[in-house]
Amino acid sequence: MKDDARNGEPSVLTLAQIQERVSRDPFANSLGIELLELREGYSRAALTVGENMLNFHGLPHGGAIFSLADAAFGAACNAHGQVSVALNVTIHFLAAMPAGTRLYAEATEESRTRRIGLYRMAVTTEDGALVALCHGTAYCRDELLTAA
Amino acid sequence: MKDDARNGEPSVLTLAQIQERVSRDPFANSLGIELLELREGYSRAALTVGENMLNFHGLPHGGAIFSLADAAFGAACNAHGQVSVALNVTIHFLAAMPAGTRLYAEATEESRTRRIGLYRMAVTTEDGALVALCHGTAYCRDELLTAA
Amino acid sequence: MKDDARNGEPSVLTLAQIQERVSRDPFANSLGIELLELREGYSRAALTVGENMLNFHGLPHGGAIFSLADAAFGAACNAHGQVSVALNVTIHFLAAMPAGTRLYAEATEESRTRRIGLYRMAVTTEDGALVALCHGTAYCRDELLTAA
Amino acid sequence: MKDDARNGEPSVLTLAQIQERVSRDPFANSLGIELLELREGYSRAALTVGENMLNFHGLPHGGAIFSLADAAFGAACNAHGQVSVALNVTIHFLAAMPAGTRLYAEATEESRTRRIGLYRMAVTTEDGALVALCHGTAYCRDELLTAA
Repeated sequence: MKDDARNGEPSVLTLAQIQERVSRDPFANSLGIELLELREGYSRAALTVGENMLNFHGLPHGGAIFSLADAAFGAACNAHGQVSVALNVTIHFLAAMPAGTRLYAEATEESRTRRIGLYRMAVTTEDGALVALCHGTAYCRDELLTAA
Repeated sequence: MKDDARNGEPSVLTLAQIQERVSRDPFANSLGIELLELREGYSRAALTVGENMLNFHGLPHGGAIFSLADAAFGAACNAHGQVSVALNVTIHFLAAMPAGTRLYAEATEESRTRRIGLYRMAVTTEDGALVALCHGTAYCRDELLTAA
Repeated sequence: MKDDARNGEPSVLTLAQIQERVSRDPFANSLGIELLELREGYSRAALTVGENMLNFHGLPHGGAIFSLADAAFGAACNAHGQVSVALNVTIHFLAAMPAGTRLYAEATEESRTRRIGLYRMAVTTEDGALVALCHGTAYCRDELLTAA
Repeated sequence: MKDDARNGEPSVLTLAQIQERVSRDPFANSLGIELLELREGYSRAALTVGENMLNFHGLPHGGAIFSLADAAFGAACNAHGQVSVALNVTIHFLAAMPAGTRLYAEATEESRTRRIGLYRMAVTTEDGALVALCHGTAYCRDELLTAA
């Protein structure tokens, strides 16, 4: 573990520490989104669609599905240790599932330069049926994720 | 009020009834999203960003902002009385706000044919600062919104 | 070859006939876009970036790269024999190449229902470097591609 | 006119010089796209859809419409004098027009920070009918447009 406390510099986070940080994401936690896996440029997260996540048609709300995908996106692009924020995301809604369905979002890196990363987030059911497909562009700041 | 109960046909919803239906959206309610205004092809909704809607950077979660925009989108495109579902949405995140900020999403209709509608959702603060901008494509089914 | 001329019905196109039809696309031809491969839901096309396809920065014009991807998209989604038109496309520009570079666009089907198809178009160089990535939504009409 | 030739530094372009530079865009010129107006964050361009810009359905090719919108986008975001490149663009195709139609693209700035700009490009006919709607994200480099 890096610790520069002696010279007053905040310590840079390790991947395990980033995973712990991401796992405490307040909004993701409030919805019950779980971070299952995290590597540089990759993550997998899950969410069980509750009755409180339906829309007025009785289908999973786009906002709930997006939130799962966005959580996976934020995890994957920040796993490099550089503070990264979303510039934009396009989501395609491909299938509707009943309440109670367990959904998985897998984020993979399509491309990454010093400043800009492109990520694909596929949202599927347990048996692999595609529910939604997203692409998100991340802006990577010069700033590193630190313990401070 | 249309009422075809006598011949067993489900009654088609009026705009006021659609507003009431949309206002009971479970996911929007769980986040505290309020539908402020609804007309055919237009809606305005609001959400106060709670501490539980932040991400692990301490900024409003993309999923919370998207959910507000998506709620406005769903309301506006269904206000015509035809069952409409989102095909895809692109969201641009333009500014970050602290917890406690009241956000407004205004959905307007850019274009609408028999089957396909395009909507713009602008998410702003109380004083009009642009926080996010979305465009969503809706698919309009032949089915009407009914009381059944 | 199907020929229903006797009863006055236009004959439905075979895949080979669709390939021939697509290969005569005026705009694709004017740019020198070649359709290399066509199957249901899949296509591959190529374009050599000419000096006349650069922008004022001296880089390949976004419009030229998009046109290649869009040509592959239109081919792949129409290869099912149903008249299909683009509703929207998102393109991510990932790398710039010098004039003279040969670019390939490969279109694959991410999802397809009776009415709506989602296609991924990856634009790469000969050695597989990703130049652009697109996703396009197609609307499939009831109408079939015919000889008429 | 700024001219730092004496000390060997390339001179920074004025708006009039940027307009002249953009007007010589090879791809735009090859299609007959005209830059009608240019201000910081704003531009208007026009294109008459030729027979050679149709697709195999006989409708204006998505690539031609996109190219017009993209030309307006590149002009508007570079008019600030900072070298700006497109990260991504989403285009919605809203109506089809016959060959011979004169199309106009108007680019306006939705948002701009030091690094990232968001632009709306509306493509219309002479009488204002909406043909396509795009949003594009530009990345603004530290580099200025120079005469060199």
